[in-house]
Amino acid sequence: MSIKLTILGCHSATPTTNSHTTSQFLEINNRAFLIDCGEGTQVQLRKYKLRFSKITHIFISHLHGDHFYGLIGLISTFGLLNREKDLHVFGPKGIKEIIILQIKLSKSFTKFKLFFHESTSKDSELIFEDEKVSVYTIPLNHRVYTNGYLFKEKIGERKLNIEAVNNHKEIEICDYQNIKNGENFKKENGEIIDNEVLTFNPPKPLSYAFCSDTTYKPDIISIIKNVDLLYHESTFLNDKEHLCEYTKHATAEQAAKIAKQANAKKLILGHYSSRYKNLELFKEEAQTVFKHVALAEAGKIFSV
Amino acid sequence: MSIKLTILGCHSATPTTNSHTTSQFLEINNRAFLIDCGEGTQVQLRKYKLRFSKITHIFISHLHGDHFYGLIGLISTFGLLNREKDLHVFGPKGIKEIIILQIKLSKSFTKFKLFFHESTSKDSELIFEDEKVSVYTIPLNHRVYTNGYLFKEKIGERKLNIEAVNNHKEIEICDYQNIKNGENFKKENGEIIDNEVLTFNPPKPLSYAFCSDTTYKPDIISIIKNVDLLYHESTFLNDKEHLCEYTKHATAEQAAKIAKQANAKKLILGHYSSRYKNLELFKEEAQTVFKHVALAEAGKIFSV
Repeated sequence: MSIKLTILGCHSATPTTNSHTTSQFLEINNRAFLIDCGEGTQVQLRKYKLRFSKITHIFISHLHGDHFYGLIGLISTFGLLNREKDLHVFGPKGIKEIIILQIKLSKSFTKFKLFFHESTSKDSELIFEDEKVSVYTIPLNHRVYTNGYLFKEKIGERKLNIEAVNNHKEIEICDYQNIKNGENFKKENGEIIDNEVLTFNPPKPLSYAFCSDTTYKPDIISIIKNVDLLYHESTFLNDKEHLCEYTKHATAEQAAKIAKQANAKKLILGHYSSRYKNLELFKEEAQTVFKHVALAEAGKIFSV
Repeated sequence: MSIKLTILGCHSATPTTNSHTTSQFLEINNRAFLIDCGEGTQVQLRKYKLRFSKITHIFISHLHGDHFYGLIGLISTFGLLNREKDLHVFGPKGIKEIIILQIKLSKSFTKFKLFFHESTSKDSELIFEDEKVSVYTIPLNHRVYTNGYLFKEKIGERKLNIEAVNNHKEIEICDYQNIKNGENFKKENGEIIDNEVLTFNPPKPLSYAFCSDTTYKPDIISIIKNVDLLYHESTFLNDKEHLCEYTKHATAEQAAKIAKQANAKKLILGHYSSRYKNLELFKEEAQTVFKHVALAEAGKIFSV
């Protein structure tokens, strides 16, 4: 069980040589996901030597350019690299039309299957799950329809206590999987060996919540409660709090309030407005409310 | 009369950290044009400190991603920068639908007027002119409908020969413009002073032809005859000439043949396939046919 989050870009609005718009590469429980895909994301993936052919699912929060203009380029590149593996794109209604129109007009049909899963609900929904991970939407409040995403590891199998297992000669290797699945062991003489004697608890499943772009929205707290890692946008410092309502963004302090109330283990701030040169101030203002704060930065890796 | 061409990107297919897809910033006779706009073009414009607010007209050759995926981002950035000046986009049919769909879905309507001029003709057409410059399409042969563009300065006004003018006391400052426009001067006594005595010829108008992407297509020669500067794609060296017909691209030697037959003053090569590491070979192969060859490279400036 592990989470490894690589920040590819974390600035708002417009890319420049040194500030890249939103994208994150998430490795969780052996799955590789991409979250948002601002212009130039494919270049960032190459720069940080991430094996982007591994990406199976892409989650787009909303249809503002700094969160998805790089998607068509990435899909085209997958095509040029002769990708064959299915690709799933999650996002707001409209994302499919945008991508398909461009593929059609450029006559660049992909060999791989491209699936779109468009959201329209205002409630949190389970949008993906397999045996290792589940993903839920986090409805946010922005100028256009926007979802954050909650990524949760599923509880894994129990770990064998080899020493205890070896004390019982009747247990053979072919029994191990049943024991790891939580079953007790029944000896030939009818004696039951309790599963708890033979195993350790599985590692605690981890979770990551991505919340961008949004105003301060306390009703997301019940969805992300006790999350291990929380990314929450902080476009502004307190000096520009008056802009939050009109632009539908949040301050660093508001992000920290969400983290505190959600009992998050750690908060990552990002989506900084380009008007701010000293990003340390975001951390300082957030830490007046919540201690465990880190600043997103392109290339930075957060591991749990 | 002058041409200043800044290469922003000149590689084919996919952008990486060090290879940028096609885009060029053309300053001609005090006009600022953008030619093609691959992903990341706005970052390249910033990197080379080009005042991109000056761009009034954008010319897109065709709807393959490496030539236009950066356009929507650039237009969005113009919006964020509160541009008010009209912007004209020229390109194949479909470019308008792609851009407008994304603007609509992101609710990012621009304050400036955005005009689209879509081409469908297979013949060369005059698509833009003002008092200083005219622009013609150059129909190319590629996998999708593609036009190159010929940019021509218009002939300017004649230059006053001040010494000659001063020999004639009757000529006043208010007469200068008529003389620069080519008129003879008529003295009060009826004597005619020939315009050629009073003026020098205007500078020779310059021209630039952009030809990408295309196979070797000799019927463009009549359109670009005697051009001062010619950019012609050279995706391949001779070793891969057999790929030209299927991919609809050209070799460096074929580009040089076009330059030679068109009597171009100088040829710029670009749109290199990423399979080639030593770009000097493109120059070497082209120079077996035509001497005045230069290699496009991001950041390089060509002035005439």
